[in-house]
Amino acid sequence: MSRAVALLSGGLDSSTVLAMALEASDSVTALSFIYGQRHGRELESARALASHYGVEHVVTHLDLGIFDSSLTRWDQDIPKGRSTEEMADEIPSTYVPARNLIMLSVAAGLCESIGADRIYIGANSVDYSGYPDCRPDFFRAFEEVLRQGTKAGVSGRPISIATPIIAMSKAEIVRQALRLQVPLHLTWSCYAGGEKACGLCDSCQLRLKGFQEAGAEDPVPYEVRP
Amino acid sequence: MSRAVALLSGGLDSSTVLAMALEASDSVTALSFIYGQRHGRELESARALASHYGVEHVVTHLDLGIFDSSLTRWDQDIPKGRSTEEMADEIPSTYVPARNLIMLSVAAGLCESIGADRIYIGANSVDYSGYPDCRPDFFRAFEEVLRQGTKAGVSGRPISIATPIIAMSKAEIVRQALRLQVPLHLTWSCYAGGEKACGLCDSCQLRLKGFQEAGAEDPVPYEVRP
Repeated sequence: MSRAVALLSGGLDSSTVLAMALEASDSVTALSFIYGQRHGRELESARALASHYGVEHVVTHLDLGIFDSSLTRWDQDIPKGRSTEEMADEIPSTYVPARNLIMLSVAAGLCESIGADRIYIGANSVDYSGYPDCRPDFFRAFEEVLRQGTKAGVSGRPISIATPIIAMSKAEIVRQALRLQVPLHLTWSCYAGGEKACGLCDSCQLRLKGFQEAGAEDPVPYEVRP
Repeated sequence: MSRAVALLSGGLDSSTVLAMALEASDSVTALSFIYGQRHGRELESARALASHYGVEHVVTHLDLGIFDSSLTRWDQDIPKGRSTEEMADEIPSTYVPARNLIMLSVAAGLCESIGADRIYIGANSVDYSGYPDCRPDFFRAFEEVLRQGTKAGVSGRPISIATPIIAMSKAEIVRQALRLQVPLHLTWSCYAGGEKACGLCDSCQLRLKGFQEAGAEDPVPYEVRP
């Protein structure tokens, strides 16, 4: 029996990856983090998605407020209105140091606890090329850590990392989501944390562009649709 | 200027490593975790030690109660009275899945935030050979992850992991602590979580044996000294 843990933020990417994990596994446990992110709305989405799919949902706290990132510090501005070229060029202030590393590490511990052998993560190296922990080389290095440093790994049943959307454009991710009938109205991608999605942060812009290129309508309400 | 982060549980090992880090670095930040461990007394020790050394002390919460370990589950028994051969033979129930991995990951994020380039950890592969995440191969694999997956790593200033006591016997660690004048009365190693150290859990037994072999007196009060 294949058992997986899927990291679920509640955004478009992780929701699509959860649907892909369910398609490929006998059993999936969703794992979400409360880490002081501004966009707490994401977590409501994660709960609604886990409930929609009827999967076990583990929610855990991380104190990442100790780190320097505009995504967890309310006194820093979220970048808005940047072009996708600008996004690709540099590591943005919304980069939370070691976030994927920490989340994957907790997911690995959960895998060991429940006997799962695969972690699904909605990382993407096309749109988030500025985040070092979204690159394939990082995930391969992390698998080696799991071979060396976990009970499962040293027992010859290493935990693997699945990154099924890592090389997809946002439009391709939208198409996957539509094919898998992901309840897109439940997902939430905006970094800003308002009642409606802001439409201007990096995440909103990438999402809207993806829907546009896929020729689909995004069912989420926006303050602004540029 | 060399700036380091030292993981500080408040036990003998991490306290000695903190003193070694201070000897080798211009500046050290101590990092402790509240992770649902029974032995909360350790954290008091960590605070007292950080205060003794006058170092910045970051304390953060981790929800490891979601994992299956006798160290975080109050309904499971802590093994007591095991021989050191039994300890070496198997992965004990006090193993917290992926604990070192998770703590190192958070430490890496903290390094990125404050510009530190070295993480000190009091891992030991002599007495804890049953813990996969105390082995040198694990730490080398983790350094590769930090080269690939952090802003510091991709910028050519990778974060390294220092494991200065990894190959030391407990007696050698006690000798190091005495040489560095570590305030041993402030340290706490017992897994059980009573008023006095129990004297019977794996951690107490190893500690007492170390002091005995080093010909020194352990200043910590014990329920039982076997």
